[in-house]
Amino acid sequence: MALSARNQLKGSIEQLTTDNIMAHVVVRVGENLIESVITRTSADELKLKVGDTVKVVVKSTEVMIQKD
Amino acid sequence: MALSARNQLKGSIEQLTTDNIMAHVVVRVGENLIESVITRTSADELKLKVGDTVKVVVKSTEVMIQKD
Amino acid sequence: MALSARNQLKGSIEQLTTDNIMAHVVVRVGENLIESVITRTSADELKLKVGDTVKVVVKSTEVMIQKD
Amino acid sequence: MALSARNQLKGSIEQLTTDNIMAHVVVRVGENLIESVITRTSADELKLKVGDTVKVVVKSTEVMIQKD
Amino acid sequence: MALSARNQLKGSIEQLTTDNIMAHVVVRVGENLIESVITRTSADELKLKVGDTVKVVVKSTEVMIQKD
Amino acid sequence: MALSARNQLKGSIEQLTTDNIMAHVVVRVGENLIESVITRTSADELKLKVGDTVKVVVKSTEVMIQKD
Repeated sequence: MALSARNQLKGSIEQLTTDNIMAHVVVRVGENLIESVITRTSADELKLKVGDTVKVVVKSTEVMIQKD
Repeated sequence: MALSARNQLKGSIEQLTTDNIMAHVVVRVGENLIESVITRTSADELKLKVGDTVKVVVKSTEVMIQKD
Repeated sequence: MALSARNQLKGSIEQLTTDNIMAHVVVRVGENLIESVITRTSADELKLKVGDTVKVVVKSTEVMIQKD
Repeated sequence: MALSARNQLKGSIEQLTTDNIMAHVVVRVGENLIESVITRTSADELKLKVGDTVKVVVKSTEVMIQKD
Repeated sequence: MALSARNQLKGSIEQLTTDNIMAHVVVRVGENLIESVITRTSADELKLKVGDTVKVVVKSTEVMIQKD
Repeated sequence: MALSARNQLKGSIEQLTTDNIMAHVVVRVGENLIESVITRTSADELKLKVGDTVKVVVKSTEVMIQKD
């Protein structure tokens, strides 16, 4: 299955915090940490846990550019 | 100025395509390429060009997680 | 590969319009038409064409509710 | 009032979970379940409850395409 | 019809640029200009034109905060 | 630092609610209230509090148009 989202970066979960409704996931991608907020239901169904190898996925229309 | 967006990754512009309304920007961040679609107006005002050092910025609610 | 996006609906492409940078895709899902705007690059790489069986994918934080 | 969001699908609420800040709403649309995360304040003001007839609304730039 | 999106600000269209697929709309809201990118199809169906009274609508999960 | 997001509106925080994972921020911008949902971590790191002068920032692809 190929997804149209242009950004799919491999990393591993460093931190996972869950609430009733939301989950906050911190993923190490190379030298960067990328943070994601998803539903608790997704975190449970994917059985996410610290150390998991995952991809962070971002649609390109959601990416902004900052310049000095 | 600090921005609430959790993801702010340093990189350099590798490719820039502009249209009347939109611009497609490809940024190298470490070993990854991150793609962004912004308005042509923003690309013009920021004077974006290939080689520029920029940050790609993504709100964490826009980041999904994929797992095998 | 499982993706955290809660909404993944099966359908088939009814209409596809492409520009230099963007592509507009109309997908029939049951009795509904769902419209998507993605990059031209993604439409090309996925080799999207009318009649293709696809899934439309939406992160739940992007879904609003309207009520009378 | 007409809204520019291209995707407005009629359904009924099957599940509603609320927290202090967020609410998770599951809506049946034909044969599919569509999930939405909105603010608790919106869920309260719209007086959402299981069984309500609602529309799920999604801007087309938020819709991705997945293909085998 | 009430929509869960928390931000619905009244204004009038100051500028409208259309392309094959996208439209760029600039709306004056009080002392501010708010810019929107929607599909060309929506701009056509809503018959948007300069001078129209409209509302700009934004889901609160799409709003970031910047502080000095 | 200049950001590609077209909408950057000055205001002051009128209300702030925090949870474990999320924070709900209400900002007065002229005659309007603009609501934002960000991570609790961002609210803490920016040391947001009622009365703070801030900017609300929105990418133009996230803005919809509603017309009578």
